[in-house]
Amino acid sequence: MNINQQSQRSIWYDPAQPGGVQVIDQRHLPHEWRIARLETVEEAARAIKEMWVRGAPLIGATAAFGMYLAVREMPEGAQPEVWLSQCAARLLDTRPTAVNLQWALDRQMAALQGRTEVAVLEDTALKLALEIADEDAEICRMIGVHGLPLIEKIAAEKPGQVVNILTHCNAGSLATVDWGTATSPIYQAHQAGIKVHVWVDETRPRNQGARLTAWELGQQGVPHTIIADNSGGHLMQHGQVDLCIVGTDRTTYTGDVANKIGTYLKALAAWDNGVPFYVALPSPTIDWSIRDGVKQIPIEVRGGEEVRFMRGWCDRTGQVEKVRIVPADSPAENHAFDVTPAKYVTALITERGVCPATEEGIASLFPEMKAAQVL
Amino acid sequence: MNINQQSQRSIWYDPAQPGGVQVIDQRHLPHEWRIARLETVEEAARAIKEMWVRGAPLIGATAAFGMYLAVREMPEGAQPEVWLSQCAARLLDTRPTAVNLQWALDRQMAALQGRTEVAVLEDTALKLALEIADEDAEICRMIGVHGLPLIEKIAAEKPGQVVNILTHCNAGSLATVDWGTATSPIYQAHQAGIKVHVWVDETRPRNQGARLTAWELGQQGVPHTIIADNSGGHLMQHGQVDLCIVGTDRTTYTGDVANKIGTYLKALAAWDNGVPFYVALPSPTIDWSIRDGVKQIPIEVRGGEEVRFMRGWCDRTGQVEKVRIVPADSPAENHAFDVTPAKYVTALITERGVCPATEEGIASLFPEMKAAQVL
Repeated sequence: MNINQQSQRSIWYDPAQPGGVQVIDQRHLPHEWRIARLETVEEAARAIKEMWVRGAPLIGATAAFGMYLAVREMPEGAQPEVWLSQCAARLLDTRPTAVNLQWALDRQMAALQGRTEVAVLEDTALKLALEIADEDAEICRMIGVHGLPLIEKIAAEKPGQVVNILTHCNAGSLATVDWGTATSPIYQAHQAGIKVHVWVDETRPRNQGARLTAWELGQQGVPHTIIADNSGGHLMQHGQVDLCIVGTDRTTYTGDVANKIGTYLKALAAWDNGVPFYVALPSPTIDWSIRDGVKQIPIEVRGGEEVRFMRGWCDRTGQVEKVRIVPADSPAENHAFDVTPAKYVTALITERGVCPATEEGIASLFPEMKAAQVL
Repeated sequence: MNINQQSQRSIWYDPAQPGGVQVIDQRHLPHEWRIARLETVEEAARAIKEMWVRGAPLIGATAAFGMYLAVREMPEGAQPEVWLSQCAARLLDTRPTAVNLQWALDRQMAALQGRTEVAVLEDTALKLALEIADEDAEICRMIGVHGLPLIEKIAAEKPGQVVNILTHCNAGSLATVDWGTATSPIYQAHQAGIKVHVWVDETRPRNQGARLTAWELGQQGVPHTIIADNSGGHLMQHGQVDLCIVGTDRTTYTGDVANKIGTYLKALAAWDNGVPFYVALPSPTIDWSIRDGVKQIPIEVRGGEEVRFMRGWCDRTGQVEKVRIVPADSPAENHAFDVTPAKYVTALITERGVCPATEEGIASLFPEMKAAQVL
């Protein structure tokens, strides 16, 4: 993505500064631009848990770099496998829903297994983390390549008119290493000169849409309008949404989609109004072990304070302020994700192509994964 | 309703202070308790437009008192009918969706027609405004009487367990003169000793749920939890909602329900999960002239600033602050209502009983209105 006209990833390693990795501290966007440097496993875990970084692919990449930091922190005389397992467990313990976290840690543990020399471990872990980051950027680019024709088709059906796309949460560059998942087809359509306009769901309670998606669309010059999460159904009833594209934190091999809380409601509205509802799905986000998304995907419950308080820029005080928006005594509950049953998903956009949200559809694009599936 | 253990209406006339009417200025809740006195048509119009008062029934009652103020303001030598028509037009011009506004103004104009003496006009307008307010309180009480058995039935099916009710926006005492519409069955169940718990949809962008419903439920001692508007679908998927009850700003004679934006999404989720979805409907909110809600009910579009900014209590500064929660350059759109097609409504709870959300169902309870219908 471009930020202030400069190419920028969400996480990056600077060879001139080994022993750490840089991330955009997304908690402060869009009001403040801050870069954080993570140098320990604990810092990486904290960055994931407290959502300095978020989005399933970026969580995976951050965890991968976390294992590089784990090697760097290994105490003298420690058993590498024991130490690394502990560190992987610490990183895994941060957030339960995104399956990419487990996936990245498993890859690192497999790569590091049996190695003992610190220099070799460090080199292996760093190389794999860089590889995972580069892979993610390429996966996201390819999701855009395969998603673009879906937008082109609608543009061709309404020549000269704007294609209206609704998205929920941030499945953008900021949720990945680069390009984003749901945003990748949008960015590629915009670059191809198609007139696109994005309805950005605010995405309460953490406002990733209003804070992050709107901000990164603005940085790329993509026309967009922020709406309350309540609005999408009305817009779809009135023909103001041509298609929806969202991301996912975990998708079952049968096509059930866990994504940011509220996604399910938009899928229902899209279904009720005949609006195509696409899920941009990088393959590391497929959970090959789970059949029933609603019953089996663990849904993170975060603190009610995220609902009760809101942060924003205060012109009067000239700084970011935190305000309570509910009665002092009223409790709040905060489920971070929901599951959209496969039947409400028009199709999945993966790095290998577009497929139906069914076991057969997914298996057809990833036959080697299906063949290796252990249930 | 009780506020600080004292009985309190949302709008009231004090005979010791003629020439005005008192309302709770709801813009400041839950952080500040302010009473406003309206003494002119312009003040009444402003109170409706700027949402010092809101909720279809309360808008109707406020407009009715506005016509009393209109009489008081009539210039010497003015033609009463011309003057009063102008004032009614000014009041009607405030908000387009709630049909109670038109209904209350029509009633006042009919009552005042042909009268010329100022004292008679004033007496007539005041009496009717008081009557409309009392009627509204009684209508709401009766909605509770008829809605209570729906809650009792569920309570009987799960003895000893809590009945979980989801509501959207504020269809509470604060939206009416007293009792509320959606809240009336809940308050009556609570008073009858049934264990109820209310999931309160925050209701972005103006947060009437988080600010008003949570506050008034708290004042009545009803257990409740605030949730983001995105959460209801997930809760319904997991059996955590026994029934939904919402209000309405206008319901067609065929049962299509205009209510706060986002209601439609909850109705879809309820439908998908077999959760009963009830609409509490005072008969003045029925629009006997409109068949197709989605196509014909005018939906108010409010300023995008209501989405872009948020107000809340700031502990750091010790006062209410307004903060911007989106990028400085990102626009927002703000539709205030949506329409839930009748097929997604389990039943309507009116002051005369519960009926299906169909033309026949509504006509069966209000045959005299059906007979008088002019299409």
